[in-house]
Amino acid sequence: MSASGFAFETVAEDGPARAGVLTTRHGQVLTPTFMPVGTQGSVKTLTPAEVEATGARIVLANTYHLWLRPGAEIVAELGGLSAFTRWPHTTLTDSGGYQAFSLAERRTLSDDGFVFRSHLDGSKHLLTPEEAMRVQGLLGSDIAMQLDVCPPAGAPREEVEAAVEQTTRWARRSLAARRPEQAVFGIVQGGLHVDLRVRHAAELGELPFEGLAMGGFSVGEPIEEMHRVLVEVAPSLDKRRPRYLMGVGTPRDLLLAIGAGVDMFDCVLPTRNARNGQAITRSGAISIKQAQYKNDPAPIDEACGCPCCRLGYSRAYLRHLFLSGEILVLRLLTQHNLWLYGELVQKAREAILRHEFAAFARSYIEPR
Amino acid sequence: MSASGFAFETVAEDGPARAGVLTTRHGQVLTPTFMPVGTQGSVKTLTPAEVEATGARIVLANTYHLWLRPGAEIVAELGGLSAFTRWPHTTLTDSGGYQAFSLAERRTLSDDGFVFRSHLDGSKHLLTPEEAMRVQGLLGSDIAMQLDVCPPAGAPREEVEAAVEQTTRWARRSLAARRPEQAVFGIVQGGLHVDLRVRHAAELGELPFEGLAMGGFSVGEPIEEMHRVLVEVAPSLDKRRPRYLMGVGTPRDLLLAIGAGVDMFDCVLPTRNARNGQAITRSGAISIKQAQYKNDPAPIDEACGCPCCRLGYSRAYLRHLFLSGEILVLRLLTQHNLWLYGELVQKAREAILRHEFAAFARSYIEPR
Repeated sequence: MSASGFAFETVAEDGPARAGVLTTRHGQVLTPTFMPVGTQGSVKTLTPAEVEATGARIVLANTYHLWLRPGAEIVAELGGLSAFTRWPHTTLTDSGGYQAFSLAERRTLSDDGFVFRSHLDGSKHLLTPEEAMRVQGLLGSDIAMQLDVCPPAGAPREEVEAAVEQTTRWARRSLAARRPEQAVFGIVQGGLHVDLRVRHAAELGELPFEGLAMGGFSVGEPIEEMHRVLVEVAPSLDKRRPRYLMGVGTPRDLLLAIGAGVDMFDCVLPTRNARNGQAITRSGAISIKQAQYKNDPAPIDEACGCPCCRLGYSRAYLRHLFLSGEILVLRLLTQHNLWLYGELVQKAREAILRHEFAAFARSYIEPR
Repeated sequence: MSASGFAFETVAEDGPARAGVLTTRHGQVLTPTFMPVGTQGSVKTLTPAEVEATGARIVLANTYHLWLRPGAEIVAELGGLSAFTRWPHTTLTDSGGYQAFSLAERRTLSDDGFVFRSHLDGSKHLLTPEEAMRVQGLLGSDIAMQLDVCPPAGAPREEVEAAVEQTTRWARRSLAARRPEQAVFGIVQGGLHVDLRVRHAAELGELPFEGLAMGGFSVGEPIEEMHRVLVEVAPSLDKRRPRYLMGVGTPRDLLLAIGAGVDMFDCVLPTRNARNGQAITRSGAISIKQAQYKNDPAPIDEACGCPCCRLGYSRAYLRHLFLSGEILVLRLLTQHNLWLYGELVQKAREAILRHEFAAFARSYIEPR
């Protein structure tokens, strides 16, 4: 075992789908796994114990946000993300590049990195591959992500090729700047070009990353295009390492990607949509705001074991809380949605162990 | 036992201070007790289980708010407040008069009741003593409050006298309109006039209310004026019935009032101030926003047993969450503050049982 304590083992395969165990200094994560997003060091509205109860054993925190506030040095002084946020399990941080790209103002890209201005106070920052590693090192996550270049959906092939090449150069610089106690994942780019993706996966596979991610999906392209590419690209990522599909997705997206051999996911969908009043169920999403629920005594989903459904909160009460601006409903819907995701990846894993994944995925995606 | 299942027994006296047991259809409440405020059917940010963990066995809900949204008929259809909100213990509702007075628009008062327009949609409503009882009956609280007239601080004596007389007339009308399964409390008015208060307490004491409240305090008068009046008035309320001081107050206010013989309190202070970033401690309140906490690893209060302090959330993390607009901190501070209130009334009760209340109150109010 390395200084990072990182290990990954595949315990079963079912076609391209895999069931595995990922180990970090903070314990084990059974894969496939879904990482709830704790942007600013908190999975919005929930305590760590509540996140844990949904089955999650790894969360994602955003380097960009924590770097700007409270500052990586503060987090380091308080013992790193796990001690700071009271999340006892594994934490992964992104590189900060995506938010520097999407949130920050007057961003410019050079071969050295991103220059951007904070969306909070306009202060100027330079995000290089080395700085991304330094900041993530201070944050003390178990898994750091390399800085990458993510071209927008529909970018011309030359721009995608340039992004791939720059990402590879930054991959080497990231690894040169790594801390031994932190695992680092490389990020495969290449847009919707299967050949670029496969070539990039092979290139990054040569480097001593502990895991390999696929970035640049779910950036606006038709979702079936993503799945068309994924099914060809995911199996080409070194099978001895965990494969992480960044920023994806719906329950259906997860199942299709698991079927293609992906092990790890993160997405704001279950948490953000909860705060917009949306409860995700196996038979689709419902908006708790709708007038049809005003005197509906049923829970969101009779068959669900989450605290919101199990304790008998009615749709009528949840609707009342939402329309009244009560915070409790944001918590309950977030718990419900993350519970569904936690159960989904757990059941997917069990199906892989039984070599029945394809049938399970079909039954879930097309419920009776 | 009456159809309301209501009973009150004093188990110990220590000077004017009393320790008691209040019983409703939803169980027992040890007194003195503090009622967290669940304005719209939710103690803001918390689940019922979390409220219960603070020691509370009774919460207050606001009739005005629930009447207008979701509507008392909806709450009745869903089984009443306890079933609707999943709070398994006792609920008390106010009459709606105070909010109709303070929140509604174009409010007019006649001998019949209040005519007001909803602050939500401008719709016109008439709140009479009978309507207040009907709405509270639909809400299904264990304890209903009579509609009263609460003059503003500094009102001339004649206005206060008129309010007292109207409140007595409305007391009789409220009792005539009561449901047998609901306990009803009368409300003593009289401003800062001890003679009016004592006379009103005697008048209402003649009526078959299950409990007697004191309204019209904490409406802007100097707080020492309230305590001066309380110490003379509270002991004059029929000692066989619970005494409820409405809308009060700070930990110090509670202790002084318990010392005067009060059994029940409600106040938005611990919950509202939490949402403004204030944590209440035995040595005073702290604002978690302050820069001095930016790298402070200590919990709010080392000696506190609440989840926020016990699980080691640092002031630095709480400050970060507050400045970042994260909902989790509102929950944690609310739990902390209500925990302090729950512990305060529990310790006050134990001190009364030991006949050491005066010493306990002194040590709490003037900590070393």
